[in-house]
Amino acid sequence: MSVTFPEGIRAAGVGAGIKEGGALDLSFVGFTDGMAHIGAAVFTQSGAAAAPVLVSRAHLDQTKGRLRGVLLSSGNANALTGDAGQQAAELMAAACAEHLGGEEHEYLVCSTGLIGIPFPADRIRPGVELIAEEMGTDPRAGERAAHAIRTTDTFAKQAEVAGIGFRVGGMAKGAAMIAPNMATMLCVLTTDATVSAERAQSALGWVVDQTFNRITIDGCTSTNDTVVLLASEVGAEPGPDFEERLLEVAAKLAYSIVSDAEGGSRVGRIRVVGGASVAEAELAARGVASSLLVKCSLLGGDPYWGRVLAEVGAALPGVDISSVSVSYQGVKVCEGGVESASRLSLADRRRLDHRMGEREIVVEIDLGQGQDTVEVLTSDIGHGYLEENRGTS
Amino acid sequence: MSVTFPEGIRAAGVGAGIKEGGALDLSFVGFTDGMAHIGAAVFTQSGAAAAPVLVSRAHLDQTKGRLRGVLLSSGNANALTGDAGQQAAELMAAACAEHLGGEEHEYLVCSTGLIGIPFPADRIRPGVELIAEEMGTDPRAGERAAHAIRTTDTFAKQAEVAGIGFRVGGMAKGAAMIAPNMATMLCVLTTDATVSAERAQSALGWVVDQTFNRITIDGCTSTNDTVVLLASEVGAEPGPDFEERLLEVAAKLAYSIVSDAEGGSRVGRIRVVGGASVAEAELAARGVASSLLVKCSLLGGDPYWGRVLAEVGAALPGVDISSVSVSYQGVKVCEGGVESASRLSLADRRRLDHRMGEREIVVEIDLGQGQDTVEVLTSDIGHGYLEENRGTS
Repeated sequence: MSVTFPEGIRAAGVGAGIKEGGALDLSFVGFTDGMAHIGAAVFTQSGAAAAPVLVSRAHLDQTKGRLRGVLLSSGNANALTGDAGQQAAELMAAACAEHLGGEEHEYLVCSTGLIGIPFPADRIRPGVELIAEEMGTDPRAGERAAHAIRTTDTFAKQAEVAGIGFRVGGMAKGAAMIAPNMATMLCVLTTDATVSAERAQSALGWVVDQTFNRITIDGCTSTNDTVVLLASEVGAEPGPDFEERLLEVAAKLAYSIVSDAEGGSRVGRIRVVGGASVAEAELAARGVASSLLVKCSLLGGDPYWGRVLAEVGAALPGVDISSVSVSYQGVKVCEGGVESASRLSLADRRRLDHRMGEREIVVEIDLGQGQDTVEVLTSDIGHGYLEENRGTS
Repeated sequence: MSVTFPEGIRAAGVGAGIKEGGALDLSFVGFTDGMAHIGAAVFTQSGAAAAPVLVSRAHLDQTKGRLRGVLLSSGNANALTGDAGQQAAELMAAACAEHLGGEEHEYLVCSTGLIGIPFPADRIRPGVELIAEEMGTDPRAGERAAHAIRTTDTFAKQAEVAGIGFRVGGMAKGAAMIAPNMATMLCVLTTDATVSAERAQSALGWVVDQTFNRITIDGCTSTNDTVVLLASEVGAEPGPDFEERLLEVAAKLAYSIVSDAEGGSRVGRIRVVGGASVAEAELAARGVASSLLVKCSLLGGDPYWGRVLAEVGAALPGVDISSVSVSYQGVKVCEGGVESASRLSLADRRRLDHRMGEREIVVEIDLGQGQDTVEVLTSDIGHGYLEENRGTS
């Protein structure tokens, strides 16, 4: 399971000394032939976007989607670091051009980690030299690349699927500052399909909207969020299942991010059905998924539908609450806007009790208005989150 | 300090048996002569507004702002309780008319407590009988009324100030589900000034916008929020200091609510200055005040400006981050969008360390764009909040 699963993709992960103690902290994903192929990217919408985001946006623009690869560092976000940070991000691209060939604007750069701390730019050149030596096309190389982008992630997040005549691979990192409209997350998706730059960019935008833009851990939007797609153009032009397979890989990675939420122990799948429109269903799902009280209920394994409806009402001031029902784990606890749990059969009550102990909790909210459905993934909020984040982290 | 501070106001707080163990749980504020005088109110904008909110809105409409008083219960929010809940809220007003005179539409009703639990309507009539017996104009009566609206509040919230020829008093309850646009909060403000219903309503709207609508504890909007103003018309028509004094009392009560946040230990005063407009300053202040990561920093007493700027950037995608500076407790830790704490004098560093241990933390964000200022109050988020809310509460 790796970014190197598709043909024509190579990767590396090395310890460049950005983190303490020699941990893996510099990662590269590019093409086996060392040349420029198709690239697309989606970035944070923050007005405080980090230097690597500014540099990568400009490079993607300049090359119109033909890239040699992406260099990713972890341990320091190079965000809110002023002119020195901007120079460090440019140096990352320049070091790639120097040691891996081509022009600096043919490389994207990403960083994740602490905000506002001067970036140790002197670690970059030696790190990229190591990458040039260690680059490989085997699963092990992809795995090291996935490890080298971790911050407080407890495991490396990878996924791969095969389509008709092409493959898709991917890696991501997440953990906290995860919110609607991306996250403190980095993700690289790879494929050997031959797609145009336009198709790559539009497929990526479509996929991100339905996956990384529909997860929330703490409602905080990051300065560094970036999702990159690299296509090696080794295979043929794929059919419409290309977008579907890309979605599948991105959805797996997004799920991994939420399941590895800082200090979290549960995944909440907030599914709104019966919406009069996607927009309405999405507002309701986001409202419930972002609620600190709902997250506390997930922590406690408590099917407290009252808080869910309170959030639906807050998100949709014009809602007809008397047509809304709520199920936890497939068991209806609220119908017509009032509680119905007291009318459950003993078997259903036992099933609910038992299933509220599971790691994934499905909360289904039926607005009773129409046919539109939206799902947003969330995590519980645990004591570990508070401890992890009370100091600078 | 009490709702009974102004002339012509009487109040009571009794134990009606809605809560367990005889605790005070039913409260009344009205006029000493038992007649209808001026009343105004602001309600939650939630689409899942509770039955008492629906009933009170209709009554206020019908009377065009001439009321005999307000009955408030705690322990059960009578929210998401369907037709039975609606009947219970109507019964609250009917019991007032029966035992205290007048018509039922001359009374407002408020409830706070658990959501979605059938309301114990049979406790209302005997409770209102007790209120009729115990009603008084002394501070003790006002204090009992303030105690009887508490839920998880650790203290009764009261305030009073004297204006030129008039007095203003108030009581409130808060604790959690406190967010922009009101809160799980109830508040009754009283005055002996003679104001028209129009002036009362417009003054109340102006005051609520600047006080209760600018506090956030957990970002959750309640089903029951209500702020009521009663004016006994005993005194003369006040000058423009009436609105100022009303603001002063409401601001004190809003501060009390945040300082008594569930599981919280600190108040964060998020002050945005230098905004190009009030709207811009408000977006930034709300974004920072609502941030779970910023709340974790408050918990830890850590002046982590990076998270503050990340929230400013998320709230204002077009911001020029290089013109923004941040101070904690009056000590500048970020200037021009980058850290400046490393250039602090030893004395300033010591002052910052010392003052980060205080109960109130002032975070001042200068956007460097204009003259507009907005302040939003927030709390830290503590382990107690998670424990209080992991089960139904």
